[in-house]
Amino acid sequence: METVTQLANQLVASYARVGGINHLDGKNLPSKRAITAITQDLLRLLFPGFFDEKPVHSSEIKVLTAELLDSVLGRLEDEIRKSLEYRPPPGLPKKNITAAAHALTVEFLGCLPRIREILKTDMDAAYNGDPAAASREEVIVSYPFVEAIAVQRLAHELYLKRVALIPRVMTEWAHFRSGMDLHPGAQIGTHFFVDHCTGTVVGETAVIGERVKMYHGVTLGAKSTAHVEELRGMKRHPTIEDRVTIYPGATILGGETVIGAGSTIGGNVFLMDSVAPNSLVIYDGLDMRVLNKADKNAALDYQI
Amino acid sequence: METVTQLANQLVASYARVGGINHLDGKNLPSKRAITAITQDLLRLLFPGFFDEKPVHSSEIKVLTAELLDSVLGRLEDEIRKSLEYRPPPGLPKKNITAAAHALTVEFLGCLPRIREILKTDMDAAYNGDPAAASREEVIVSYPFVEAIAVQRLAHELYLKRVALIPRVMTEWAHFRSGMDLHPGAQIGTHFFVDHCTGTVVGETAVIGERVKMYHGVTLGAKSTAHVEELRGMKRHPTIEDRVTIYPGATILGGETVIGAGSTIGGNVFLMDSVAPNSLVIYDGLDMRVLNKADKNAALDYQI
Amino acid sequence: METVTQLANQLVASYARVGGINHLDGKNLPSKRAITAITQDLLRLLFPGFFDEKPVHSSEIKVLTAELLDSVLGRLEDEIRKSLEYRPPPGLPKKNITAAAHALTVEFLGCLPRIREILKTDMDAAYNGDPAAASREEVIVSYPFVEAIAVQRLAHELYLKRVALIPRVMTEWAHFRSGMDLHPGAQIGTHFFVDHCTGTVVGETAVIGERVKMYHGVTLGAKSTAHVEELRGMKRHPTIEDRVTIYPGATILGGETVIGAGSTIGGNVFLMDSVAPNSLVIYDGLDMRVLNKADKNAALDYQI
Repeated sequence: METVTQLANQLVASYARVGGINHLDGKNLPSKRAITAITQDLLRLLFPGFFDEKPVHSSEIKVLTAELLDSVLGRLEDEIRKSLEYRPPPGLPKKNITAAAHALTVEFLGCLPRIREILKTDMDAAYNGDPAAASREEVIVSYPFVEAIAVQRLAHELYLKRVALIPRVMTEWAHFRSGMDLHPGAQIGTHFFVDHCTGTVVGETAVIGERVKMYHGVTLGAKSTAHVEELRGMKRHPTIEDRVTIYPGATILGGETVIGAGSTIGGNVFLMDSVAPNSLVIYDGLDMRVLNKADKNAALDYQI
Repeated sequence: METVTQLANQLVASYARVGGINHLDGKNLPSKRAITAITQDLLRLLFPGFFDEKPVHSSEIKVLTAELLDSVLGRLEDEIRKSLEYRPPPGLPKKNITAAAHALTVEFLGCLPRIREILKTDMDAAYNGDPAAASREEVIVSYPFVEAIAVQRLAHELYLKRVALIPRVMTEWAHFRSGMDLHPGAQIGTHFFVDHCTGTVVGETAVIGERVKMYHGVTLGAKSTAHVEELRGMKRHPTIEDRVTIYPGATILGGETVIGAGSTIGGNVFLMDSVAPNSLVIYDGLDMRVLNKADKNAALDYQI
Repeated sequence: METVTQLANQLVASYARVGGINHLDGKNLPSKRAITAITQDLLRLLFPGFFDEKPVHSSEIKVLTAELLDSVLGRLEDEIRKSLEYRPPPGLPKKNITAAAHALTVEFLGCLPRIREILKTDMDAAYNGDPAAASREEVIVSYPFVEAIAVQRLAHELYLKRVALIPRVMTEWAHFRSGMDLHPGAQIGTHFFVDHCTGTVVGETAVIGERVKMYHGVTLGAKSTAHVEELRGMKRHPTIEDRVTIYPGATILGGETVIGAGSTIGGNVFLMDSVAPNSLVIYDGLDMRVLNKADKNAALDYQI
């Protein structure tokens, strides 16, 4: 036990000495665990019957929905209150925080029917866009895209209401689950679909039109910069117009980059420039070298 | 409570209005949670002693195996029955579903010894193919590839038996765990190895020969298409012949694309064409520009 | 039950026939579940107050820290003892294993204050390097990078002490959580930041300087080889000098490849050669083809 006391003393001394990565004596932050559980319940409200263990009948749906909503409302209100206390939105008097948290939560839950309508278009895009989809049910129960886009559309509403921390914790949970990092700030049109998802990143200020189809490993990112403080809040991520298709591994960077409507961006392409509507952007076979491994001069660098 | 009632009414109205993303009054779908638990138990049966909390002795293995198999048989039969009810295979009389579910589950579990033999070749390929592997035990307990390929080989058997939903739920769990999306339909030869795994995607109709080695971020995909309905079930993904190595980030698309035996595909290469056996396909340094950042004209687009 | 007995017999026969993927009658391996739980507790010790469900006050931190350290010490010592029994470090007499496990665990926990100091520089780099970060708290509670780098820095200490299996199980848990695979062997300087993380791979013998910034999908890898046995333990992964920025999707391979200080590596670049300090390496627009989709000869291979 003496060893433990000594180790503990060293560590506590480090807590006093090295700040910025401790959270002591501070406002209670929203709980990651609570937000994760709430997010899963919100998915059950959005896709009734799909994420429940037992079959759900119409006759009971009204009661079940009211019960689940009641539970979500109370728990989400708690987390939103913590968030408002941690970072009050500009102009909100401190004494009003409890009332504001309630109002904001109710307003957010009132968006669920509208979010469902958009998600319906995404599910249509997924089923209609992937020959591997054997049924619409298969899409909803097994495509990582479903959770990822549903959570982003939920988090986006809280982001618009300037709730701190919670939207990012929500989308980061979806990132963990799907491998796709959709920032809550991104504006994403209807009929969106990303197949496979892993490695796809959509930045905070990206704007995506309707009927956009992307694959895994696609980046809609910002240019790296040393002027970070000046850029917070500025548009740093590209605009993708309607009916664009982006193949796996393509990287598109910059706030002024616009991919014109109807364009196709080839796999692994790296773009920092805008392209006109109906463009096809590719690295084509001309730049590729196909060598015979029997040729001794071929490929010194490769194990062959 | 009035607020909740109102919110619930709006949401229930949306359930009636927006179809296709509800599952109400329908057949009981196979349970994701149950399938996940069954899959983990199947892994314990495939790699005895590795995924158990306590050491396992030979003297007890017969009893433990029989107990675990008995449990898996009952639970998997339940899920397969739900799947057959949801989408009966062509020609199966409805009254036979319970018997068919039992027969199918027994037949599937009878494949485990054969799957173990193939997995043994994959583990050999992993250990023999990665200088970072300190031991075979390290490979089995810490390489994401192990779970991913074991689950794909299990799911592939159910896919061949035309069981709906369950194979995709199984591989999607492995995708979540490993970041690698191996479709249950893919035909994968012996001695397969994918290092690191994250972002690698192998499509439904891909055919992979023996002793193929791939890295993370490799796509064996389909070309995007507007003719989705015509393509369901058609070969849309490439064929990779024996002893091919594919470096990280390479993307190979199309059902008629064949990568000849013994070839090496370089990193980040994007291919839609076949290559002959023993080819080396690279983007080499000739097409790359190395600029000095002190040169003012260099790299207008980059922060430097 | 007869069916189960038969299936079990076949499977047990396969355990006897197919070796190498069983772990029977062997030394008790370190437990993945235990290591995962210990790793999460270590994160709580490194970032006090951030990963706890309740707010933590300074007045109680000394007691809480001692309690948690005491618990971690006992549990980690158990796992390290199993690891030493499984693969004793060269020169360790077998009877000393229990004492060695204790000493090693105490020494490791004594590193936590130093690891905290380095992690503080990483958190600074993250906040100062990403315009999307709304606050330092947001970085710590929602950036996958935080867990990934903290776990790598912990595992690296155990790697240096030649503890088998445990470091890889720790970093593989972080890989699962973040999508980023940082090998415990990699040497990583202060002020490191990787945004988004998914798909980034850093190999065992990579050396990374200070203030290096990378994105998702970056590979610091080894060349594939048939001479695996000769290469175990050799430097096979690149050296990245100070203040280098590496854009998404770049792949850099080889143990002799050195990226000079202050360089920028463009997105999706594939490099097997060293570059001088202050280089900018890009595939630029010159090699890219932007075609009008209305042109019938454009893009035969693409669906347009």
